[in-house]
Amino acid sequence: MPDTADLTAQTGHRLFPSSRRAYVAGSRPDIRVPMREIVLTPTQLPNGTEVPNEPVRVYDTSGPWGDPEFHGEASRGLPPIRAGWIRERGDVEEIPGRTARPIDDGYLSDRHREQAEAEGRRNPIKYFDRTGHPILRAKPGRRVSQLHYARQGTVTPEMEYIAIRENTKLQRARDLLEMTGDGPRNSLWRQHPGQAWGGRVPREITAEFVRDEVARGRAIIPCNINHPELEPMIIGRNFLVKINTNIGNSAVASSIDEEVEKMRWSVKWGGDTLMDLSTGRNIHQTREWILRNCPVPVGTVPIYQALEKAGGRPEELTWEIFRDTLIEQAEQGVDYFTIHAGVLLRYIPLTARRMTGIVSRGGSIMAKWCLSHHKENFLHTHWDDICDIMAAYDVSFSIGDGLRPGSIADANDEAQFGELKTQGELTLRAWDRGVQVMCEGPGHVPMHMIPENMEKQLEWCHEAPFYTLGPLTTDIAPGYDHITSAIGAAMIGWHGTAMLCYVTPKEHLGLPDRDDVRAGVIAYKIAAHAADLAKGHPAAQYRDNALSKARFEFRWQDQFNLSLDPERAREYHDATLPQDSAKTAHFCSMCGPQFCSMKITEDVRRYADEEALRESEAIAAGLKAKAEEFRATGGEIYRAEPADPKTA
Amino acid sequence: MPDTADLTAQTGHRLFPSSRRAYVAGSRPDIRVPMREIVLTPTQLPNGTEVPNEPVRVYDTSGPWGDPEFHGEASRGLPPIRAGWIRERGDVEEIPGRTARPIDDGYLSDRHREQAEAEGRRNPIKYFDRTGHPILRAKPGRRVSQLHYARQGTVTPEMEYIAIRENTKLQRARDLLEMTGDGPRNSLWRQHPGQAWGGRVPREITAEFVRDEVARGRAIIPCNINHPELEPMIIGRNFLVKINTNIGNSAVASSIDEEVEKMRWSVKWGGDTLMDLSTGRNIHQTREWILRNCPVPVGTVPIYQALEKAGGRPEELTWEIFRDTLIEQAEQGVDYFTIHAGVLLRYIPLTARRMTGIVSRGGSIMAKWCLSHHKENFLHTHWDDICDIMAAYDVSFSIGDGLRPGSIADANDEAQFGELKTQGELTLRAWDRGVQVMCEGPGHVPMHMIPENMEKQLEWCHEAPFYTLGPLTTDIAPGYDHITSAIGAAMIGWHGTAMLCYVTPKEHLGLPDRDDVRAGVIAYKIAAHAADLAKGHPAAQYRDNALSKARFEFRWQDQFNLSLDPERAREYHDATLPQDSAKTAHFCSMCGPQFCSMKITEDVRRYADEEALRESEAIAAGLKAKAEEFRATGGEIYRAEPADPKTA
Repeated sequence: MPDTADLTAQTGHRLFPSSRRAYVAGSRPDIRVPMREIVLTPTQLPNGTEVPNEPVRVYDTSGPWGDPEFHGEASRGLPPIRAGWIRERGDVEEIPGRTARPIDDGYLSDRHREQAEAEGRRNPIKYFDRTGHPILRAKPGRRVSQLHYARQGTVTPEMEYIAIRENTKLQRARDLLEMTGDGPRNSLWRQHPGQAWGGRVPREITAEFVRDEVARGRAIIPCNINHPELEPMIIGRNFLVKINTNIGNSAVASSIDEEVEKMRWSVKWGGDTLMDLSTGRNIHQTREWILRNCPVPVGTVPIYQALEKAGGRPEELTWEIFRDTLIEQAEQGVDYFTIHAGVLLRYIPLTARRMTGIVSRGGSIMAKWCLSHHKENFLHTHWDDICDIMAAYDVSFSIGDGLRPGSIADANDEAQFGELKTQGELTLRAWDRGVQVMCEGPGHVPMHMIPENMEKQLEWCHEAPFYTLGPLTTDIAPGYDHITSAIGAAMIGWHGTAMLCYVTPKEHLGLPDRDDVRAGVIAYKIAAHAADLAKGHPAAQYRDNALSKARFEFRWQDQFNLSLDPERAREYHDATLPQDSAKTAHFCSMCGPQFCSMKITEDVRRYADEEALRESEAIAAGLKAKAEEFRATGGEIYRAEPADPKTA
Repeated sequence: MPDTADLTAQTGHRLFPSSRRAYVAGSRPDIRVPMREIVLTPTQLPNGTEVPNEPVRVYDTSGPWGDPEFHGEASRGLPPIRAGWIRERGDVEEIPGRTARPIDDGYLSDRHREQAEAEGRRNPIKYFDRTGHPILRAKPGRRVSQLHYARQGTVTPEMEYIAIRENTKLQRARDLLEMTGDGPRNSLWRQHPGQAWGGRVPREITAEFVRDEVARGRAIIPCNINHPELEPMIIGRNFLVKINTNIGNSAVASSIDEEVEKMRWSVKWGGDTLMDLSTGRNIHQTREWILRNCPVPVGTVPIYQALEKAGGRPEELTWEIFRDTLIEQAEQGVDYFTIHAGVLLRYIPLTARRMTGIVSRGGSIMAKWCLSHHKENFLHTHWDDICDIMAAYDVSFSIGDGLRPGSIADANDEAQFGELKTQGELTLRAWDRGVQVMCEGPGHVPMHMIPENMEKQLEWCHEAPFYTLGPLTTDIAPGYDHITSAIGAAMIGWHGTAMLCYVTPKEHLGLPDRDDVRAGVIAYKIAAHAADLAKGHPAAQYRDNALSKARFEFRWQDQFNLSLDPERAREYHDATLPQDSAKTAHFCSMCGPQFCSMKITEDVRRYADEEALRESEAIAAGLKAKAEEFRATGGEIYRAEPADPKTA
């Protein structure tokens, strides 16, 4: 365990201050679960003594990028930590795989691509060297999904890894609960342990619990056998609420390097999964670079690439183009696919009188296809074929909500709920074929209509994990939709949504840059964490308590370092009180040096202690008086009282 | 009604693009309720015709500062629009008022102040010339509060003003509801009129309804008779949710000019009330400048100034210093006072074992005083005296929550709820003396514990309006507490909180600057508006619908102008697509020019229309066939069917 004070990766990326990378070992040497450990300064007691504060361990999504010992070269990719686990199950085989075609990256032929590059119209594609990364597929007749293993009763290394990952903070919280020797200022979990441990979250997350939740379909572990670099994580409502971030080069902007950098930026701040929504050229190669360097599950919307292959014309899409795209992406290692198979022909007219029609890009594409051909959605008619492809690589479904509301006015309407029911039917069929499933949800929903979304989803989709975009609770704040949606996300997360798709401040307006991604991820970490607290996840409040304790004790550096964004917190403090001395000062800019509310609590504690002392002295004195009275009356245990003549 | 396209005040302040100031007249010429009217561009139909879009009127808190015809000179102050209403009731008299003293601005004597200025240690105080602003007080034996008038059955001009102000958007929404001629794309309120009009909010807010809510104590109209510049507004859960902003020079920073500018900045973005929390020098004069220029109610925490007069030492506070400060501020025109009279001696020890003790500054001051003297809180023992002072000027109570939780761990504990019960007792006593009351609430509360706060407050405080700080739903995001708290604020607003005290990104870290105030106000406008939507206030969704319609129709400028922060929305759009042409383009940066989901809805509508046509043709054809059959069978209305031999 390297104990650098400031976590800085080999790449020169400054990660987090006063943090170090820790690994928790599992039952076998190749299970090593990464965590970030935040080192704290000691508490200065009023009498001058110092009481050490235990470091705080937090869930870490940054993967090897957050380990200072990692080589940090994108061209080499991440270590394939799951390769051995996948092979040892004996149910996969190496295949030559589909031959990459120029159209995968948006060119009609190799000549077209070369010409575009020669003319400087496009940046030359950098190819990731896939030597040493063979393509795997299930052996004929075998199922290789975590759902299948769970149903067999098997605890996979992935499940054990997840149990440790979800549980570690919990173990630390318990450690601290038992650490009562240092008195109340050092014991956490004092106020509401009952409430915190209650609710739906179990007291302890074991590997067997992970297995059972996956077997039941209530949680998924998105982990394509061709993405062995992935650090396993789980999406389900009895676990920590997760967040998804989106990246993607669009027709208007960006390059491969930028996309890889965005991915690293996203996992640094805490993105649990990543969707690559690229729509321009070089889609295949961009994805390859991302997958080989991404420690979290990667999702895509395959219809986007299929549409590129169809020249951008939805009506020219075919099942064959789509199937080929699924295989292409599954072989690369994409962990989950958004597929809009619930957009049925009969639901489409229900959107005609909406305020904002169909706003999902995938939903629009399929609606256009259906209308052009006057045929049922081919994703629906080929559902079983799709399932069979996904089962062969353990790609999970994220069943799309192509008819989600795009405005408050359209929330919870017939079109939306019609599709949700179909999502539920498709869930059952996917489960039958051993494929893991989550379902996507809205969108734009006012607060009072949020619970209905969750209730119907649980009922109609048989408790498959819900994965929502926000929802945005009002339409009137473009430029601030990370906030309008964090409100809805926190609420629906509390009600049971397993993963929240982030929204950046640029939503509806433009493409997010680094600052927007950071703002979006932090807003969603807040929403997810607020939901974890409300659900009573004990590991959640552990960090709140550590931070509040630091705040109360004027340990400014610890307060910054324990926050979701230490850089921002420090920068804001510097804006008013830039002096180094202010970072140890027992006052803040709000009240000034002369007076501070937190100082007064010292007096309160002294008073309470004195009062308790007075009380115990009074009790002692009273006992003494009683004892003397007892002795004076002759020491008889039972003393005959003179009977009351009236009551006889 | 000036019809400038871009609302720019005389002061050179750019206000809002494509907006103009409108006034709605009441029953008498001196009731003129200001609104901002956002002018929209026409809808371009696919067939090339243009359909005009009605301008959208929004609640406007900016006062004369938002009127381009206002003189804009702070030294002259705002027009005293209420002066006539106050005088004509015949229950007030002019008084000489308390003589201002050097200590009011933090100096022991005039000589001290002059010396400080001469030595350049302090900026010279600019005195506001109060000529023409006489000091008023209730005549002996008279009560001058809106609560008193309401109980008498009187509808004051203030109440009528409020009814128009709260109602105008509602009337517009109804206008648009009835405007069905232009077809579905121009009719708002289609989807959920039932839900929108339901709930607790009445269909129409009349002046009589305002009066009844005030008489019941369920709403307050903070409006000191010495603040005639105020544009009346109401705080109560059956009205639009309001937000409060805080400003204040602290011991560490700021000047009078800065504070006045902050006030204008706050009301521009939509702050409904303003608290002046100044703690440094020049408190009296800063407040004078703010009051003479502030169109919204101003609140203070008088104990802050009293503490300055006591040399910053809580134990040296006396009832006399405090009483003198109340009178000083009431004569200046402060509209509501936060008074921490619920911090009782017996509750103080309950905070000793908290994670973060007492975090309210006022609460800490009173706790310190109580402990120093071993006496009950003098604000509590002098409650009736305080009520009598406040009743003489119609200053409203904001009964402080000095023991609010400062961390998730301390939420909903004995100390907090003990004080809340006492707030309820004090409410009844204030009502008995004709004083308007709202009660302050937390603080830091996880989502699942928020409803309990609201329920207990409604019960124990007899439905007096609740006014909460956030609450913050997690402690782990300093630097982003406008977001952690907007989540809690939206929820508690939905549950019935009448006013939300804003939190800026600098909370816990430093003093907010302009950008922080803007970020805080917008986050809270979002929370309040999300709550209005969830409560079913019909005027709220009107703006959402107008914006969503603009978004759907690619009216980019309208989308920006209808948003809470048009500048930010435009700036974000420019960041990706700076060209002017992009502001009218029928695509966005997310999908690029080649394809956009919103375009497909055109096809959907055509399809739905054709389907409807086919259906109606089928029906018509069916009817024709039936008709022919009818004729063929001889045209008899009742035709004897051959009886089925089996069924007798």
